[in-house]
Amino acid sequence: MKTVIVKGLGLMGGSLAKDMRPLYPEAEFVGMDAKQSHEQKAVELGLVDRIGTADDFDRADMVVLCIPVNALPDALVEVMDAIHQDCLVWDTGSTKSQLCKRLSNHPKRHQYVAAHPIAGTENTGPEAAISGLFHGKTNIVCEVERSGFEFQERARELFQALGMRIRFMNPDTHDRQIAFVSHLSHISSFMLGKTVMREEQSERDIFDMAGSGFESTVRLAKSSPAMWTPIFEQNSQAVLEALGDYIKHLTEFKNKMEEEQWEELYAEMEKINGIRSILEGIPGTPSAKTKEEIQKQ
Amino acid sequence: MKTVIVKGLGLMGGSLAKDMRPLYPEAEFVGMDAKQSHEQKAVELGLVDRIGTADDFDRADMVVLCIPVNALPDALVEVMDAIHQDCLVWDTGSTKSQLCKRLSNHPKRHQYVAAHPIAGTENTGPEAAISGLFHGKTNIVCEVERSGFEFQERARELFQALGMRIRFMNPDTHDRQIAFVSHLSHISSFMLGKTVMREEQSERDIFDMAGSGFESTVRLAKSSPAMWTPIFEQNSQAVLEALGDYIKHLTEFKNKMEEEQWEELYAEMEKINGIRSILEGIPGTPSAKTKEEIQKQ
Repeated sequence: MKTVIVKGLGLMGGSLAKDMRPLYPEAEFVGMDAKQSHEQKAVELGLVDRIGTADDFDRADMVVLCIPVNALPDALVEVMDAIHQDCLVWDTGSTKSQLCKRLSNHPKRHQYVAAHPIAGTENTGPEAAISGLFHGKTNIVCEVERSGFEFQERARELFQALGMRIRFMNPDTHDRQIAFVSHLSHISSFMLGKTVMREEQSERDIFDMAGSGFESTVRLAKSSPAMWTPIFEQNSQAVLEALGDYIKHLTEFKNKMEEEQWEELYAEMEKINGIRSILEGIPGTPSAKTKEEIQKQ
Repeated sequence: MKTVIVKGLGLMGGSLAKDMRPLYPEAEFVGMDAKQSHEQKAVELGLVDRIGTADDFDRADMVVLCIPVNALPDALVEVMDAIHQDCLVWDTGSTKSQLCKRLSNHPKRHQYVAAHPIAGTENTGPEAAISGLFHGKTNIVCEVERSGFEFQERARELFQALGMRIRFMNPDTHDRQIAFVSHLSHISSFMLGKTVMREEQSERDIFDMAGSGFESTVRLAKSSPAMWTPIFEQNSQAVLEALGDYIKHLTEFKNKMEEEQWEELYAEMEKINGIRSILEGIPGTPSAKTKEEIQKQ
């Protein structure tokens, strides 16, 4: 491995570069980002050795794309067109259907692995890059049967070296389910932030009363619109369905409150408490199994 | 201080007992709880020295009530009726209007301090009690002018020894604002849990895809219905208003998605990102000032 290209030097790309460099100590790490300030910062922080251009693609042994999902399809095709026959390409996009469709008939489709490492923080940019971000997290790989054996294997070894659990899914199922379990959480958080900020305009000091519970539910409202707007757009059908269900459940809760059906609300919340035991299975959460337990699996 | 009574030995009462014992090393700590299993456990864990009855109130130098808000008014009157003239009484209830109204004409009103320490976790029962739960957190004291100087002072000293910041408010403003900044977060979390659990009945493995973002937004869905149903009931007017606003904002977001107004959604989320700087002021959160900084204030 002589050259690794990381396209997109934000939280994901930066964190990946940080943890991949020790795995390929002999490789030159070349970075690219739509923002020049990100490029400068990434070199300053030593996340990559130098900044490259499209001319570098044909010498790469691995290209990772960590850019917003609206920019991914065109960028991916550009990379695939340029690479040599031993180069592995993968991406970290949060939607997979459109991307897999777009690549479907590409002559080098077998060199591509469609991945979605479910990891992140609410922070953005190369300064937000942290080591260990992917450790113990789940990585969904889509349409794995379309990737060649050699490329499946190289990607698997890398993901395992980063400490990730690998799960295989088809892209449509991935997009639908991730709408419920990730995309919806972001909208719920953004709108919670909006609701309290609106109130704050008229009532001072309200944020001074906020505790860790509010902070926890509203944390994702700090997320990057540049990343999330394209995700909502690309996955709008599934997100709209999840959001519709959510609004329906909130409205039913409100109606029951108005009708003073307290016993029913009690029973409902008690049932939802069952999520505690389900959440214990989520890696990377305080209640989850330890990394060691996961690695032993 | 010879006798301290903690009525309600769950997360709040248990954690308080844990941190108050070293402050009053000479005092006997007497506990009471509606659940016998909690009482046994609290003695076993050494949170209190023994379990008491209503007969103990007249010898208490301090009584703290840490019970669900529906049980608070009657219990508080019972305690106030029984105590001697030097006993300080305070509570940790999440709603304050009804309680203050109920106590308004009590001859010993000046011995009572209406407090709401904004602290907690999603866990319940004496086993969930942790040391330091209140450190660096905000404690809202309502109608402080109705408490006698001596009792104001004793409560203030205790709250500061526990590491809490004290804020004074009137009960109606407290209840209204806490609906937005705490009660709403719990409903948003419960309904998020419900929405994903519903989906999970038809689609297996969905929780296996969940990351730390989902865990963070859904954490409060593990909260106790026994604590939260009475809060929603007592504070229903303000909670309904907050919930109505929240549903309205979610519906507007959904409509904009359906109309593909991506630029507007981008601008809106960017505006909400402003919550980051506001949240930096919240104590007890990762982004907040350190305890030392707060203590220096």
